[in-house]
Amino acid sequence: MKILLIGANGTIGQAITQELAPRHDIITAGRNSGDVRVDLKDFSSVQAMYAQVGAVDAVISAAGNVHFGALAEMTPELMGIGLADKLMGQINLVLAGQHVLNDGGSFTLTSGILSHDPIVYGSSASMVNAGIDGFVISAAIELTRSLRINAVSPTVLTESLASYGPFFRGFESVAATKVARAFSKSVEGKQTGQVYRVTG
Amino acid sequence: MKILLIGANGTIGQAITQELAPRHDIITAGRNSGDVRVDLKDFSSVQAMYAQVGAVDAVISAAGNVHFGALAEMTPELMGIGLADKLMGQINLVLAGQHVLNDGGSFTLTSGILSHDPIVYGSSASMVNAGIDGFVISAAIELTRSLRINAVSPTVLTESLASYGPFFRGFESVAATKVARAFSKSVEGKQTGQVYRVTG
Repeated sequence: MKILLIGANGTIGQAITQELAPRHDIITAGRNSGDVRVDLKDFSSVQAMYAQVGAVDAVISAAGNVHFGALAEMTPELMGIGLADKLMGQINLVLAGQHVLNDGGSFTLTSGILSHDPIVYGSSASMVNAGIDGFVISAAIELTRSLRINAVSPTVLTESLASYGPFFRGFESVAATKVARAFSKSVEGKQTGQVYRVTG
Repeated sequence: MKILLIGANGTIGQAITQELAPRHDIITAGRNSGDVRVDLKDFSSVQAMYAQVGAVDAVISAAGNVHFGALAEMTPELMGIGLADKLMGQINLVLAGQHVLNDGGSFTLTSGILSHDPIVYGSSASMVNAGIDGFVISAAIELTRSLRINAVSPTVLTESLASYGPFFRGFESVAATKVARAFSKSVEGKQTGQVYRVTG
């Protein structure tokens, strides 16, 4: 398969590459690195990326920024960061990609545990992650040409505990290699409209 | 209680008024009608509304527009309608209101069944409704001064079947009076961080 991976440089992205590269042709895309440069917030940049890479069989997104901060200090602008980037950035991949992927191709987006298991400072992330999951189950019933879509919703990464551990006290963490297998299941299986919760 | 009701003119809003007006003081707000005019998309308009009505004990939102349309024809701009209006519009009520509500006050937002039970043409609504639910469960754990927040997530209204029935074939509908009781439960009870699914 020809797989377009956005966010290949991140911890999850690297684990996905390790998992899938032995069996597939991976094209990487990112804001500041990768085979192709793309700004997911910019729909025309997403369209240009698809035009550059040509038809692919799978699109994986392990990208997206969200602002973490106290609800008391949250503003529409700070909420807007996650809406434009992690939420609409990933949805832009689907809105543009549905017209250009090969028949039977798949989209796999990344959401996260905060959709249903909140932490302090995570109100924007909870909103964004839940929104991704809602979009995925709905888009799945409308995609044509046997296109598929799933989300991977991981808990906090074991690799991230050094930086984020204090915000996730009591959460079981998961290794990025385990998260990567959920992407494999989405891309190499045939399920659609699923939210794969990867817990520790 | 002094209750601020946004969207009082809609089918659900009218049922909420019928349910709560006998016991409470209701102030209505809306885009084109009500005691106070407000554009929820505009944070300064929301702040001005709170300044005008003074401290309240409960805020109820039964407002919010979303674009319905085929996924194949969906654009970032069309998705943006629901993000700015039903999602961020209602969240603006919380971001501004958390600083001015009376101690122990409550927010009750409206999401909807499409968050987890999708229909064709509903990808934006699924995203928005899920995002509202995600925000609500997360905001609940950060609100101070015993402030509370819940969402009411109704299925299609019986009163709306004449117009929307063809899009909701096989869905059980629910009368607006039953939906209104979920708002009563949120406002007059003490629960927080709940998503009340009102099914037929």
